[in-house]
Amino acid sequence: MNLEATINDFKSHVERIRMFTGAMTVMGFDAHTIAPKGAVATRAKRDGFFESEVHALATGDKMRGFLEDLAPHAAQLDPITLGMYRVCKRNYEESAKIPAEKVRQFSELTSNAYVAWEAAKKTDDFPSFAPYLKDIIAMRKEMLEYRRVDDTPAYDLLLDDYEEGMTMAIYDEFFAKVRAAIVPLLRGVMASKKKIDKTFTRAHFPIGEQRKLSEFIAKKVGYDLSRGYICETAHPFCSTDNRDDVRITTRYDENDFFYSFYSVLHECGHAIYEQNTGDDIADTILSTGASAGLHESQSRFYENIIGRSKAFWEYITPELKGYLPPHFKDATPIQFYEAANHAGPSFIRTEADELTYSLHVMVRYEIERMIFTEDIDVNDLPAIWNKKYEEYIGVTPPNNTRGILQDVHWSGGMFGYFPTYSIGSAYASQFLAYMQREMDVDGLIKSGNLAPITNWLMDKIHRHGSVYTPRDLVGKIAGEQLNADYYTAYLKEKFEGLYEIK
Amino acid sequence: MNLEATINDFKSHVERIRMFTGAMTVMGFDAHTIAPKGAVATRAKRDGFFESEVHALATGDKMRGFLEDLAPHAAQLDPITLGMYRVCKRNYEESAKIPAEKVRQFSELTSNAYVAWEAAKKTDDFPSFAPYLKDIIAMRKEMLEYRRVDDTPAYDLLLDDYEEGMTMAIYDEFFAKVRAAIVPLLRGVMASKKKIDKTFTRAHFPIGEQRKLSEFIAKKVGYDLSRGYICETAHPFCSTDNRDDVRITTRYDENDFFYSFYSVLHECGHAIYEQNTGDDIADTILSTGASAGLHESQSRFYENIIGRSKAFWEYITPELKGYLPPHFKDATPIQFYEAANHAGPSFIRTEADELTYSLHVMVRYEIERMIFTEDIDVNDLPAIWNKKYEEYIGVTPPNNTRGILQDVHWSGGMFGYFPTYSIGSAYASQFLAYMQREMDVDGLIKSGNLAPITNWLMDKIHRHGSVYTPRDLVGKIAGEQLNADYYTAYLKEKFEGLYEIK
Repeated sequence: MNLEATINDFKSHVERIRMFTGAMTVMGFDAHTIAPKGAVATRAKRDGFFESEVHALATGDKMRGFLEDLAPHAAQLDPITLGMYRVCKRNYEESAKIPAEKVRQFSELTSNAYVAWEAAKKTDDFPSFAPYLKDIIAMRKEMLEYRRVDDTPAYDLLLDDYEEGMTMAIYDEFFAKVRAAIVPLLRGVMASKKKIDKTFTRAHFPIGEQRKLSEFIAKKVGYDLSRGYICETAHPFCSTDNRDDVRITTRYDENDFFYSFYSVLHECGHAIYEQNTGDDIADTILSTGASAGLHESQSRFYENIIGRSKAFWEYITPELKGYLPPHFKDATPIQFYEAANHAGPSFIRTEADELTYSLHVMVRYEIERMIFTEDIDVNDLPAIWNKKYEEYIGVTPPNNTRGILQDVHWSGGMFGYFPTYSIGSAYASQFLAYMQREMDVDGLIKSGNLAPITNWLMDKIHRHGSVYTPRDLVGKIAGEQLNADYYTAYLKEKFEGLYEIK
Repeated sequence: MNLEATINDFKSHVERIRMFTGAMTVMGFDAHTIAPKGAVATRAKRDGFFESEVHALATGDKMRGFLEDLAPHAAQLDPITLGMYRVCKRNYEESAKIPAEKVRQFSELTSNAYVAWEAAKKTDDFPSFAPYLKDIIAMRKEMLEYRRVDDTPAYDLLLDDYEEGMTMAIYDEFFAKVRAAIVPLLRGVMASKKKIDKTFTRAHFPIGEQRKLSEFIAKKVGYDLSRGYICETAHPFCSTDNRDDVRITTRYDENDFFYSFYSVLHECGHAIYEQNTGDDIADTILSTGASAGLHESQSRFYENIIGRSKAFWEYITPELKGYLPPHFKDATPIQFYEAANHAGPSFIRTEADELTYSLHVMVRYEIERMIFTEDIDVNDLPAIWNKKYEEYIGVTPPNNTRGILQDVHWSGGMFGYFPTYSIGSAYASQFLAYMQREMDVDGLIKSGNLAPITNWLMDKIHRHGSVYTPRDLVGKIAGEQLNADYYTAYLKEKFEGLYEIK
C-alpha cells in the first residue's frame, strides 16, 4: 500500500476515534449538568462501553499497524498528519502495554478511593484514606513498569504524561526560582502596612442578575456564545465537543460575585482557546489545546493577566454599572483592582490568590516527587505537608481536611498533574512579556480593545491546537522554553506595587 | 455453533446497537435543548456517523446471519429473545434492501422539503411546496418497491411501518365508526344551548411559577423525577435514553397555563410508560414502548382519561391552590373541568379538543389513502383537504397555512403515521373500560389514589416494553383488538353530559 493510502486509512481510523470521543463529551457534559441522578448506573455502563471502544481503536492491532507503517515516513509527513501520528503514538505507548485486567483493577481501586477520600475529607480522617493512597501509589508504580523502555524515572514518565516534555529537572529549576522569588515576596506582603479591604465585594447579588453579568463579561472577552453555553455546576469546568460547541460552567455565590466573575473569566480562557482552533484541524483529534499547561496559560491569561489588571478594572468598572446591584455604584476601579488582588497566606489551593498560588502547587510537587523517588510512608505525609505550608506560606493547616485531604487528584491516581497549574500561570506571564514587545497591552485593555490580544494568542497558540508538542509550540513563539523569570518578575512588579513594598 | 452461543452473540450485537442509539438519544436531546446554534453542522456530521454505524449493525451481513440462523428456531425462543429477533427482523426488512444511495437521496430531498415547507407555511404558498411533496410521494413509492415481497399495497406497508399489524382494512373500519359517531356528536355540541367559557383560564401566570406547577403535577401522576427531567422547548416531546433517564419538555404560555399543564400530563404519560419497563428488559432494545399507537394511548390516558375527567378536577382543584396565582382562587372543579373540555370546530390538529381530535386525523388518513391508492394530482390536495374539513368538522380553513400546510409530517415523508394518534385515544378509552371492570377508576381518581391505575397499566402494558407486537400485547389484555366502540361510547357519554345533549 502506498503512503498516501495508508495516511488516508489512518485518518479515517482517527476520525472514528474522534466521533466516539465527541459523543462521550456530550454525554459527559449532560451527566454533569442535567442528567437525572437515577441514571448514574446505566450511564456508567454506557461510558464503559465507549471507553473500551475508544481504547480498542487507540491501542488495537489496527492502530499498531498504522504506527508501524508511518514510523519510517515520519520525516515526510505534513505537520497535521505528523501531529495526529504523534498524538496517537503517545496514547498507544501510554496504554497499549498495560494489561486490561490491571486497568480494570486500577479503575476499581480509584473508584473506591474516591469514596474513601470524600468521607475522609468530610471527617478529617486521613488514616482512613491512607491505605487507599498507599495502594494507588503502589499500583501506579507497577503500571508504569509495563511501559518502561529505558531507565527514565517513574515520576518523569508521569510528568510527561500530563505535560509532554516535562521532567523533574525542568520543574526543579522552575520551582527553585518560584520559591526564591515568591516566598520573600509573600513575607513582604504580610509585613506591609498597606491593607487591602475586599469585604465590600461580599454584598448580596442575586443569582439571576449574576447570570446576566456572566454573559456580558464572557462576550466582552471574546467567548462566542453562538458556539458556546454557560451552565451551572458545583465545580466550574470547560467542556469541548468541537470548536463550534465549547461550553463552560460556573457556580454562583450570592454573597461573593467575584467567585463566579473570575471563574467565568478563567473558563472563558479555556473556551476561547478551543473555539479558535484553525480551519485545517477543525473537528479532528488535533482540534484541542496542546497540553494541560498551555490550556491553563490561556485560562490564567484571561483570569489574571487581563481580568486582574488595573487596566481592565479601569475599563470595565463603568461598563459594569448596568449589571451590578446599586450598592456597588460608588466603587472605584482601584477598589475593585485591589480587592481582586488581595494576597496572603491561605490553606486551600483553589481559593489561593495569584501571588501564592504556585506555592500551594509547589508543596504538592515536592511531595509527589518524594513519593516517587524516595521510600516514603504515606502516614508521614500529613506532617510533611503541614511543614511545607509553614515553610513556604507561613501557616500550618488546622487539620487535614484543610490540608492534605483538600484535593481530589491523588484519589484518582493523578500524580504529576499539579505542576501544570503553575506553568500555566508562568507561561501566561511569559506570553504577556512577548506580546508587550509588539503592542501596548495595557493601553489596549484600558480601552477595552481586546481583539489584538486575542488575535496574538490565536495566531501563536490557539489555531495550532495539538499539531505541535507543547515545547515545540512554545519554542516557536520566541525561541525559548518555559522561563520562570517572566513569572517572578511579573508577580514582583505587581505585588510590590499593590502592597507598597520597598 | 449451538443455539445458545448464537443467541449470546446476537444479544451482544444488539447490545451494541443499543449503546449507539442510547448515545444518539442523549446527543439528540442535547441538540434540541442546550446545544449552541453554531454547532448544527458539526453535530449533523456526528449524527450521520452514528446513523450509519447503527444502519450497518442493523442491516449488515452479521445481522443477516443472525436472522437466518435464528429463523428456524423462532418457536423455541424465550419471549425476550423472540422480541429482539422480531424487532431486528422488522428493521432489517424495512431498510436492508434499499440502496444506500436512495436513502441518501431521500434524506437530502426531505431536508430540502422541510425548508420549503417551513417557508410555504409561513407565506401560505402551497404551490411552492407542491413539487417537493410530489417528489417525496414518488420516491416513497419507489423505495417501497425495493422491499416488496408480495402484493401488499404500498400504503399498508407504510401503515405497518408505523404501527405493526395495521392495514387499510382495519383503519377503514375504525374511522367509519369514528365518523358515524363523532360527526353527529359535534353537530350536537354546536347546536347545544350550553356554552362553555374557558376564558378564565387565560390569565397571566408567570413562567417561573408554572415551572413549579409542572413539577408538582408530574410527581402527582407518578413521573419519577429522580429518573427524569423537565426541560423547555418550542415543541414538547418525551426523550428516553433508558428507563432511568426519561425526560420530557414543555412550552410555557404565560397567558394560558392549560397549554403547559396538559402538555406536561401528555408527556408524563409517555414518560411513565418508559420509566416502567420491566427489570428483565431494562436498557435493551426492547425497553421502549411497543408502538406509536400504544405510546399515544398512555399519553392520552394521562392527559385525557385522567387529566380531563371531572373526578381529577374534583381531586386536584384544592391541591392546586398553592401553585395557581390568586386570581384562580375561586375557580371551582366544575369550571376547570368544563374549560378543559371545551369542544368545537377548529382548524389546527394540535390544538384540537378531545372530541374532534380524531376527525382531524381522519382527514389526513383519507388523503394519504388516496395518495397511495389513486392517481392523484398534488395540486388538488388543498381543495380536497378543505372539503373534508367542511364535511367532518363543519369549517373551511381560511388558508393553507391553517389547512394542509399545518403539519410537518409529509415534508419528512411520514405517510401512515397520523392514524396512530387516533388509535392512541381509542386504546386509552378501551383500557379504561377494561380497568373499570376491575376497579372504581373514577373513585380512585377523585381520591387522588392513582397508584392502582398506574399499576394496572404497568402490569398490562408498561413492563412489557416491545417484547410483544402491539396487537399481541393488546390481545393479551382482554382477548380483543382495537375496537372503536369503546372510544365512541366514551366520547358520547362525556360530551353529551358536558353539553347537555338529548
